Amino acid sequence: MFNAKAYSAASATSPLASTTIPRREATERDVQIEILFCGICHSDLHTVRDEWHSIMPTVYPCVPGHEIVGRVTRVGSAVTKFKQGDLAGVGCLVDSDHTCPNCQDGLEQLCPNQTLTFNSPDKHLGGVTYGGYSESIVVDESFVLRVPANLNLAGVAPLLCAGITTYSPIRRWGDITGKKVGVVGLGGLGHMGVKFARAFGAHVVVFTTSPGKKEDALRLGAHEVIVSTNAEEMQRHAGSFAFILDTIAADHDINAYINMLGRDGNITLVGAPEKPLAVSAFALLFGRRSLSGSIIGGIAETQEMLDFCGDHTITADVEVIPIQKVNEAYERLVKSDVKYRFSIDMASLKSE
Amino acid sequence: MFNAKAYSAASATSPLASTTIPRREATERDVQIEILFCGICHSDLHTVRDEWHSIMPTVYPCVPGHEIVGRVTRVGSAVTKFKQGDLAGVGCLVDSDHTCPNCQDGLEQLCPNQTLTFNSPDKHLGGVTYGGYSESIVVDESFVLRVPANLNLAGVAPLLCAGITTYSPIRRWGDITGKKVGVVGLGGLGHMGVKFARAFGAHVVVFTTSPGKKEDALRLGAHEVIVSTNAEEMQRHAGSFAFILDTIAADHDINAYINMLGRDGNITLVGAPEKPLAVSAFALLFGRRSLSGSIIGGIAETQEMLDFCGDHTITADVEVIPIQKVNEAYERLVKSDVKYRFSIDMASLKSE
Repeated sequence: MFNAKAYSAASATSPLASTTIPRREATERDVQIEILFCGICHSDLHTVRDEWHSIMPTVYPCVPGHEIVGRVTRVGSAVTKFKQGDLAGVGCLVDSDHTCPNCQDGLEQLCPNQTLTFNSPDKHLGGVTYGGYSESIVVDESFVLRVPANLNLAGVAPLLCAGITTYSPIRRWGDITGKKVGVVGLGGLGHMGVKFARAFGAHVVVFTTSPGKKEDALRLGAHEVIVSTNAEEMQRHAGSFAFILDTIAADHDINAYINMLGRDGNITLVGAPEKPLAVSAFALLFGRRSLSGSIIGGIAETQEMLDFCGDHTITADVEVIPIQKVNEAYERLVKSDVKYRFSIDMASLKSE
Repeated sequence: MFNAKAYSAASATSPLASTTIPRREATERDVQIEILFCGICHSDLHTVRDEWHSIMPTVYPCVPGHEIVGRVTRVGSAVTKFKQGDLAGVGCLVDSDHTCPNCQDGLEQLCPNQTLTFNSPDKHLGGVTYGGYSESIVVDESFVLRVPANLNLAGVAPLLCAGITTYSPIRRWGDITGKKVGVVGLGGLGHMGVKFARAFGAHVVVFTTSPGKKEDALRLGAHEVIVSTNAEEMQRHAGSFAFILDTIAADHDINAYINMLGRDGNITLVGAPEKPLAVSAFALLFGRRSLSGSIIGGIAETQEMLDFCGDHTITADVEVIPIQKVNEAYERLVKSDVKYRFSIDMASLKSE
């Protein structure tokens, strides 16, 4: 074991504060990474504040962060994919059982025995896993991603969660070239959805409640923007979409978007509103439409996404902050006051 | 024009009673059919009682019936598919615009300008179309189906709606051979779902709230029956289904069934509960599951279904009644007191 600087929360109502955490010495299959940037995901905030208590209670101290990019400082003797000095990424998972049908199919995100990057039982050190708000992390190489060298690293970090969460359902839907694809909500997830849908050749339409986001949506790659509170505008586009990515985690009128779909159209949820969505059966029946859910992606697919980002020069739009501003960033996150993701510059941790 | 005996309702609160309705003389593209059997679909009852007023108000007098099987008595000069004496079927549609993208793709059931078999504006005679509770009907040959000669005609009638409604989503889902397929509800639709899923080679499981239906479900072809009110039994099957056909038109806990689905599993609604369904986003996200809707099928697919039924000797389980018992049958339908579909023997109309 060695000590690493980190930021942790001591309770659901405590701010994040400087601390020291133990990390394991790299085993033969491990990669030790110096963390350069870590994105701030809304899940970090939910976990720190124990807002998902009923599903997954938070164990304190809690060190969040699962949008990690850094540089390899050490590798175990059996590691083959990485060497010291390589760029590396870590997302929402650091382990799984490797044996279940989902793992065998490369879908570790659906493994019932997965280890999340933070707040999951730590098989090595006991207690729970500690995430990326830290100067370093040690991870089994099978959960470490290669990072293309041509990308801005602050903007790479959010790809590890916001990126794969939006890439996976768009990619799996099928060929969207020339098809009309909608993205509901223009936040951390939505802005990545726009970039990916555009890169895959779709005609991209953003649905937003904020007319003020129009210009930015177009800059990010959208061809059109629909203000969803404008009933007439909505009606004009009814029945015309092949696929819609719904990134809204708050309660919303899902039928309004189901009705935007054309025949056999699909809307996939990547946000998870707490309250059940009121779904009209009629909206699904007429047009044989479908409503799906999707959650991050497997390791192989995450690597594919990163390679795709390298090829198409795609990164998240980030506001880089020092770790000392993390609590302020959380307050702004609650108000959706960020374009479009905070990325913590971990060099700032050196002064703690 | 000629007159035909029929049963019609004079208002939303009137019983069905004997009457005479006009039918058009067959045009060059028309097929005139002597109706032998007509199934009773729940839509008949909804329309007769104007229960779908907000979507499609009922015009009176109303002659319902869209599960029609009979014998061709006359064909127009341009008719090529039928000759006098042939068996013939007519389902929910008697016309469409033939030009929209859905029609061009053989999906007339999604045509925005379709003509329903009853209670739709009648292009030929004005007023609304009159359905199958009648001794005869005249229909454009492109909406007339060929009926295999080897099947019991009373049991063929319900194939034209209940049959295609369940066949279409099962068929479109993909190859279900050896896969675990659920059917929720064992009524007119559900019992056809069981027969089709079994014929396509699935491991068929019926979900029912009525333990008393178990034996009959097995007789119809189910391999297993789950009493959905038994939480332990439900839990044992959680996450194990590839596909579920949900035939329940009443309000029900859809998440209980979504949770039965395995990875990438789909549940398709063919019933349409009036109230929106409360759908948990979490249930969809974990497992990348989807919820769809499906509505009858196109003409080509309906023909495929009838041919499949001929090849596999599939018909609906029916209780044959004379038309004079139709009002009593409606009362029993409301109480789900039928195994599994009423089929009206139209010979009974001759005595009126």
